[in-house]
Amino acid sequence: MSVKLRTIVMATSQISKTVSFYQILGLNFLKKNITLGGEIYSATLDDLELALLEKSNVEKLPQPNYMLSFKVENLDKLHEKMLSGGHISILEPTVFAEGKKAILLDPDGRSVELIQV
Amino acid sequence: MSVKLRTIVMATSQISKTVSFYQILGLNFLKKNITLGGEIYSATLDDLELALLEKSNVEKLPQPNYMLSFKVENLDKLHEKMLSGGHISILEPTVFAEGKKAILLDPDGRSVELIQV
Repeated sequence: MSVKLRTIVMATSQISKTVSFYQILGLNFLKKNITLGGEIYSATLDDLELALLEKSNVEKLPQPNYMLSFKVENLDKLHEKMLSGGHISILEPTVFAEGKKAILLDPDGRSVELIQV
Repeated sequence: MSVKLRTIVMATSQISKTVSFYQILGLNFLKKNITLGGEIYSATLDDLELALLEKSNVEKLPQPNYMLSFKVENLDKLHEKMLSGGHISILEPTVFAEGKKAILLDPDGRSVELIQV
């Protein structure tokens, strides 16, 4: 297939908390100022860009409309760091057939699965 | 970096319209039934899974909180197909330094950039 996803931008009203959440995961952000005002933090994962955009009034939903799944190493350690960082875990590291998984909520309420295969 | 994004799931209240939008882009979806009821449509782009989850009450926002950028071939033709499919274009195919770009809104109001380099 010739189509390829190159960038995902997610808006957040809590830019520093959300940057910190994804930094624990291992993302290295570069901060850029944008013409509209506000800030954008951009990280590269392989050849995919994941960016966080500062925006007021991004509502936190009671149930997530977005779920991201990341393949990680050192799941237990990452999960522990997330808890120490004040983040919410909805599934403690648990062994499944496809690997060990944990599920967290990022500061905007997205469901973030970590899996160590 | 050892972390890798493997899946993005986006909830939509208009599953058939949204599937159709991303099918025009070239995504090949497999339909799966899920235990909670409802449907999930999953497509693979390189080694990234992009899935659409049927969910009631996903609110369409006046301004997008999510922006996706896809690298495509045949930008003009794709843009034309999107218009024929009743989708909304907010930027007609336009030449920029990094390539030719168009921006559409998907049925949930996400901003979807197409770029042909």
